[in-house]
Formats: sequence, structure tokens, C-alpha cells
Amino acid sequence: MRVVVPFAAETPKTRLESVLSPAERAAFARAMLADVLRAIVEVGHEPTVVSTAPLELAALDLSDEVTTAATVTVDDRPLTDAVNAQLPWAGGDKADFTDAAAVAVIMADLALATPDALERLLTADADIAIAPGRAGGTNALVVRDPAFTVDYHGASYLDHCEIGREVGASLETVDSFRLGTDIDEPDDLVEVLVHGRKHDRAAAYLRELGFELDERDGRVGVVRDEASVAETR
Amino acid sequence: MRVVVPFAAETPKTRLESVLSPAERAAFARAMLADVLRAIVEVGHEPTVVSTAPLELAALDLSDEVTTAATVTVDDRPLTDAVNAQLPWAGGDKADFTDAAAVAVIMADLALATPDALERLLTADADIAIAPGRAGGTNALVVRDPAFTVDYHGASYLDHCEIGREVGASLETVDSFRLGTDIDEPDDLVEVLVHGRKHDRAAAYLRELGFELDERDGRVGVVRDEASVAETR
Repeated sequence: MRVVVPFAAETPKTRLESVLSPAERAAFARAMLADVLRAIVEVGHEPTVVSTAPLELAALDLSDEVTTAATVTVDDRPLTDAVNAQLPWAGGDKADFTDAAAVAVIMADLALATPDALERLLTADADIAIAPGRAGGTNALVVRDPAFTVDYHGASYLDHCEIGREVGASLETVDSFRLGTDIDEPDDLVEVLVHGRKHDRAAAYLRELGFELDERDGRVGVVRDEASVAETR
Repeated sequence: MRVVVPFAAETPKTRLESVLSPAERAAFARAMLADVLRAIVEVGHEPTVVSTAPLELAALDLSDEVTTAATVTVDDRPLTDAVNAQLPWAGGDKADFTDAAAVAVIMADLALATPDALERLLTADADIAIAPGRAGGTNALVVRDPAFTVDYHGASYLDHCEIGREVGASLETVDSFRLGTDIDEPDDLVEVLVHGRKHDRAAAYLRELGFELDERDGRVGVVRDEASVAETR
């Protein structure tokens, strides 16, 4: 199975602009990417980063194992087109399809992804296995049907289920909080701090920037130490 | 195993006040409770609703099977106290503990809960199994250790992990998007509409009120048909 990780290398994570500078957003996006790549390699796969611009994996400070396993290919088209281009057998005959031709597409901002969660997705039996995100998004999917194509616009989870039904593919929804949590908005940073594991780079980077959990009126959010803001901006 | 469902019968779901009237919030909370009770009965358990005020299960229009299996007990104390009172062996000797004494605590607003998701939680092997919600909440847990007590204030998932470690309990985090999605705020209604199944009462009630998915600027939310608002308010 090929495992593809789309990555917006330029101006990533704009919805975090109220809490992170452009340079911090870029570094945070790369830390999340590094965590996702490590989890993929830990379940025995060799990820291909499909980046909107050239990307030096060496600059991500990955382990030797991950550096060896991962590759980068550049495709500056919108997400849907870039991913569909990674489904090389599209339109082919299902009878000719081999499991080696299966493609998994895993978003680069799934900072909570663990090998266990990915394993559940990657070993699902269905022709199309989807881990939905909030608001009807498609955070990760596995495609084992040559007639299936992606469309990431809008409520893509529902659209992908519909496309799957149209081409006669079997469908499985993978029920994972970790894969269902993409990190887009300031509130999402709470999840990184709560569920980040010891060697997770994204959580470590947020702590380095001065972010910590904050309880107010019984609700949990994040707060940033202002001294850290002054130092790093 | 006993399965407890805490329910705030009075003024429920106040954080939905911008989109639902008090009467609608009460009806929606009861629809979600009905869905949760049915899912629990479908995995073979007999839920006890721990309600802050008297509650007529008959008024929930449950199936005969669910009506027979479910009971209500009233406890008007805060959530933490009411749940701890349901752990009757608290402080007892772990050696005397039988699996029949295990208690599951499942929140009444887990509108996406399915039998499959609950089964994964209820069959977890650990002394303490937790399905976390967003922002460090504890949406559902199973307690198999007599020394464990709950504390739902703040980031309760982290607190419950800490309490478990203090009493020497083994811990398992159950990775479920469905159990991780509690319905508290207007944005959460999207999840009910996207993932609600055919006979789910909560999703049907929202549709009856005129709610539907709405895509704007590539992001998915809910919108309510104003004619329905006028009719039902």
C-alpha cells in the first residue's frame, strides 16, 4: 500500500493566525508533519509527502529511519487534484486491482495520530475506509477501488461515502478520535496538549512557545505565556 | 456491569441557547438520551439514568425493550458527587472486586454513540477505560477498581488518568470519534446531522426543527429554516 501525505508547504495553518506568527505556523505545521510521518513509518509504511512546494525533509530533523522511508513529491495543484493524481489506476478495471495498488491518504495535521489508530485504518477490509474529521471532513482514507476519486470540497466525508456507493465500493467508517482530530483552529491546540505523547514534536513545540492548558469557568482552553511570545516573535 | 447515564433534567444544554429555545433544548436533550439508552440496551446492558430531577421514561417514547431495561434514579447533587455515589464499593478491597461490580458511566449527550463504539469501551480490559471528549473531557468511562473515584471538573480526562495512576489502576484510552463527540454547542449539531443514523431520534428532531447542513466558504455548518423556527417557537 502506498501512503500519501498531502502537505501545504506555503502559508500553512492560516486559521491559527490569531495565536501563532507566520513563522510559528510554518514550524508547527512541520512538527505535525514530522509526527504523522513517524507514526506511518512505525506501522511499517513508507510515506510520500505530496507537497505544494519543494520541501527539505532533512530540515524536519527526522530520525534516520523516517528519513530513509519518506519521500517528497511536489504538486502545486489544489488538494483534490493533487490527491487524485496519486490514484494512478483511476478508471482502471477492478479485476486487475491488487492490494499493493491501494493508496492511503493521511492529512499532515493529524497531530494525534498514533501507530495504533493508523493500523486500524490501514487494515480495514472495505474498498473505501474513511476516518472522518469534525464538520464532515475526511481526515484519512484508504482507497482500494480503481473507480474511486476524491473530492475534498465541503462535507467531503458524506461526498466520499456517496462516491463510494456510486462506484459500488464497500465502505467502512473508522471510528477514531485521534484520526478525527485535525488541528486547524486555536481551540484544537488543547487536543495537542492533552493527548500529545512524550516524543511528539507538535506538543513539544507548543510548550516551547509557552502554550499550556488553562481552565476557566470549568472549560479548558489554552493560554500562552506572554514572555514566550515576546521572545519568539 | 452496571451502566449509569447521568442526565441533567432541568435546563439542559444551555450552551445551545443561541439556536434552540428552552423547550427545544429539553426535547433535544431527551432525544439524545433516548438514543444513548437504545445503544446501551443493544449491547445487552440495562442502563440506570441518574437524573437531577424526576423523569418519566414513558414520556421518552422508547421501545418496549428499552423501557423494560432502563430505570431512573434521582440525585440532584453535582455530577461528580452523583456519579461517585454510583460506585458503591468505593474504598473497598480490590481483592473482593468482581467484574459484576464494574460500573460504566456514559454521558447522556453522546448522540453519536453506537453499539459498536460502546462495545469497544465496555469490553476494554483495563481497570479504568476512558473515552475522552474534546477539551480533555471524560465522555464515557468504565471503572473496575474499588479505589477509583471520579472528578468531572475541568480537564477530567487528565485528572482521571492521574487518579487511576495514584490508586495503581491500569488505564486504557478508548479511541472513538463517536464517543468523543458530546453535543454541547451549536457547531456540534453538524456532527449529529452528518453521523446520525436512520432511526436516531436526535438527528430526526433537528431535521424536524428545520436544521440542515450548510456549506459556506468551504466550511460546513448548520443552518435553520426560519419557517420552522416560527412554527415551533
